[in-house]
Formats: sequence, C-alpha cells, structure tokens
Amino acid sequence: RKMENYWRFLVLLGAALLVGFVSVISSFVWVFRYREGLSWDGRGGEFNWHPVLVITGFVFIQGIAIIVYRLPWTWKCSKLLMKFIHAGLNTTAMILVIVAMVAAFDYHNTMKIPNMYSLHSWIGLIAVIFYFLQLFFGFTVFLLPFAPVRLRAALLPIHVYSGLTIFATVIATCLMGITEKLIFALNNPAYSASPPEAIFVNCLGLLLVIFGSIILWMATRPHWKRPPEENTKILWPIGAAPEGTEVESTMTKGSNADKSDLRSNAEAARKQNMEFDEAGQRSTM
Amino acid sequence: RKMENYWRFLVLLGAALLVGFVSVISSFVWVFRYREGLSWDGRGGEFNWHPVLVITGFVFIQGIAIIVYRLPWTWKCSKLLMKFIHAGLNTTAMILVIVAMVAAFDYHNTMKIPNMYSLHSWIGLIAVIFYFLQLFFGFTVFLLPFAPVRLRAALLPIHVYSGLTIFATVIATCLMGITEKLIFALNNPAYSASPPEAIFVNCLGLLLVIFGSIILWMATRPHWKRPPEENTKILWPIGAAPEGTEVESTMTKGSNADKSDLRSNAEAARKQNMEFDEAGQRSTM
Repeated sequence: RKMENYWRFLVLLGAALLVGFVSVISSFVWVFRYREGLSWDGRGGEFNWHPVLVITGFVFIQGIAIIVYRLPWTWKCSKLLMKFIHAGLNTTAMILVIVAMVAAFDYHNTMKIPNMYSLHSWIGLIAVIFYFLQLFFGFTVFLLPFAPVRLRAALLPIHVYSGLTIFATVIATCLMGITEKLIFALNNPAYSASPPEAIFVNCLGLLLVIFGSIILWMATRPHWKRPPEENTKILWPIGAAPEGTEVESTMTKGSNADKSDLRSNAEAARKQNMEFDEAGQRSTM
Repeated sequence: RKMENYWRFLVLLGAALLVGFVSVISSFVWVFRYREGLSWDGRGGEFNWHPVLVITGFVFIQGIAIIVYRLPWTWKCSKLLMKFIHAGLNTTAMILVIVAMVAAFDYHNTMKIPNMYSLHSWIGLIAVIFYFLQLFFGFTVFLLPFAPVRLRAALLPIHVYSGLTIFATVIATCLMGITEKLIFALNNPAYSASPPEAIFVNCLGLLLVIFGSIILWMATRPHWKRPPEENTKILWPIGAAPEGTEVESTMTKGSNADKSDLRSNAEAARKQNMEFDEAGQRSTM
C-alpha cells in the first residue's frame, strides 16, 4: 500500500530525527562544555543526568514512540509487533525518566535544596504519574489480549489524546527546567547578560518546541495513519461486528433507495466511518 | 440537530469556563494581594499588566475562540457570523497581548533590565508572531470571500493545527513566565521556601495546564464538530463540486457492483469523507 504524500512524510521524519538528535547532542554539550559533566556523587555532575536523560528519554524517545505506527515500511509488520515496539520505547523512556528524577532529588538532598517547591517539579511529577498510568493502561488494555474490542475502541481516543497531551506537557516542563537552571546556574555574567551558555541553551529550548511541533503534526494527519488490518473482517463474523464496522452493509442497503435515503445513509456511513477510524482498527490517532 | 454526548460537552464547557475564570481572577489576586497591584508608571505595577493580560487574552479568550464553533446552540447561526465571532475574540486577544508586551518592555527599560534574553521572551515573541500570521491568514483566506474553496480546504488543517499548537505554546510560555517571576520576585522567603505566594501561583500554573487540556480535548473530538452547512450543496452544482464533496455520487456508483467493488468504493468513500471533514465545510478541527 502506498502512503499519500510519502515524500512529505519522509522529509518531516528526517527533520524530526535531525532536530531530536541535535537536541540530545546539545544536552550533552551543555553539561560537558558549560557545566560539571556527568558523575554520580550527589553534586552538579549528578544533577546533569537530569536534563540529559529527560531530553533523551522523555522528549526524543517518547516522540519516536508516538509516530512509530506511522512509518509506512512497518505497515507490513504485524500490529502486535508494532505495539511491542511502541510499548518498549515508552518503557525505555519511563526508566530513563525515573533515573533522571532520582538524579535531581539526590542532588537537592546533598546540596540541602528543598524538593518539589517549583512549578517545574509539580507539573513534571504530574506528567510522570500520568505517563506511568498511560503505560499501565496501554499494556493492560491494548497489548494484553483480555480487553474486549468495545473497551479498546472506547479507550483508544483517550489513549491518543493523553499521549499527545503528556508529550506536550513534558516539553513545557523542559522549558521551565531550562529557565530555572539558567537563572540559578549563571552568575557573573548572569542569564540577563546573555552569555554564550544562555544563548546555546535557549536554542536547545527552541529545538525542543520544533521537535514537538513536528511530531504533533505527523501524529495528527489522518492520511498518514497505519491502514486497518486486512483480517479484522475475519475476526468479526457478520452480525457480530462491533459498532462502527458496519460501513459496507449500511452502504449496500442504500443501493435501491431514493435520493433522500441515500443522503441519510451517506451521513450514517460518514459518522460510522469516523467511529471506525477511532475504533482501534487504525493506529496512532 | 442534536449533539452527541451533549451533557458531557456541557460539563466540560462548564469546567473550562470555571477553570479559565478562576485563572483570570487568580492573576488579579496575585498582583493585588502579593505584588504591587496595577499601574502604568514603568515600575512593578506596570509589569503586572503582563501576566494579567496574557492570562485573560492569550489563554482564556483564545481558548474560548478555539471552541466557539462547537457550541451547539450556535449551529443555527450562520457560519459567517461564527467566523466573525472567532476572528473578533482572537483580535481582542491579540490587542491585549500587545499591551501586555509593551508593559513588560516598558518595565524592563525603566528598571534597566535587558529585554529578550530569556527563553520565555524568545518563545513568547515567536508565539505572538505566529498568532499574528494566523490572524492575518485567517482573515484573508477564511473570512474574506476571495479565496477559492480548494485553497480554503487545503489550508484549513494547517490553520487548525497552527491554532492548537500556538495555544499550547502560549500556555508553556506562561509556565516559564511564572517560573521566572517567582524566582526573581521572591526573596526572604525565597521561592524554594514555598511561601504562600509560591504555592498560590504554582496552583495558577496548574490551572492553566488544566484549562488548556480541556480546550484541546473539546477541540479535537470529531463528533462535536459543527455540522456541515445544509446549503453547501446549493452552492456547488453537480459536476462543479470541489474535491471531497463527491461522497454521495461515489456511493451511488456502488449500487450494482460486486462485493469487491463495493469494498473499494467504501474505502474511497471513507477517504473522501475524511477530506470532506477537513475541507472547511465543518469547523474547528
């Protein structure tokens, strides 16, 4: 099957990978060139794992996990395999984020800085909790084979919305973190004097916004969705099909109808197609 | 016409209005109870217009402008009237944001604080520029009667995506602004000692995220879209219909076809319906 606007997709994918990759590299450049590098001693070098791991895991890997179903060369792979890859990437990101949080708390405790006082920490912790819930319900509802199709269909739009909203919230939290760190760390010259580190890390913040914007565009184009499985028809015999899969029978009924009947059938089909599109036969959004 | 899940829509609308309204009130409480109030003298009281006007205009009014097409009791109003309301709300927000920016620059200049050094200012200015472009192209393409239907159909998904992305970016920028202001303004006790102002304004930041999340959910539910205009059929005689409106003729063709033809017609209809949904006959998303 050919993807519509395939080249546009490839260009955007290339841009996302480039911007994401440059963001990750920039986080390393930040901590090694301008800060204390990386260590695990409760001091600055331990804190530095925080931005590096958050940008690598919570931004870059989560971003790729969001669009992984849309890569057209994976459309011949089974949906189950793709779900494992989606879940695996998000689990990897979750682990990196937990280490990143430990690094920040350890550093605060060593340096006698209070924990959890800033808006960055409040929203960051809420994002991590929702990300964990998203992973948990993702596993139990969409990966394990127990949830009925109706439940999957009902929860998929919520899963997609939550995923994209958590992703956007994570990027907003990074921007707050960058703001905090530059204000606290830059003295003589201060942040307001725009030393090279300030310019460099502001640019990193911009890259994160651009990366997020590209991922959100790619994830919300309906024509770039993974096509529905061919065998979904086999799984649901006629009469047992769940809501939103009766598209063809609705249209067949219209064959001998008059104009106005056709019209309302067309409306019904349109509506059902919409539900069908959301019903878990198709992927990311 | 009845809206699907009407009561759920009403509850969410009520929640959005409540959270948005409490956010605006909280911004006033912040500047009057904890800061220097409001004035226009280049000092703290002038700066305070910045958070108040940004939260009122760029968050609350923009958020309402985004979902205004979805209010079901406006579906009997003409699309043109609703476009004027959408454009009017966004223009109001734009004016408030410009005043908010002037207040911040004036304050910086009086206090000899550099302008445009922080990530907050960079991303904030970019958001304002994109918001202006969005308004300008919104007027010229969708409100003025000159743009051809094909161009409107091609640009609508971009308009919707840009609008939602700008809105999310604005909320992220508010969170950075809150972070900056609390770090700079709170001394003895500092932000890290969590004085009442810190807790209060952190909660305001949380409210902004909740408001944004509700608006984005409401704006992206396909079944809450404004229904397509009844008279679009009259405007385009058969044969002259733009792409994506040929749904019914496609289905009529299927009436005497065999199973496999029906299937491909169903697929084509589904695809065309998708384009139709995005083609400017239906509103916000």
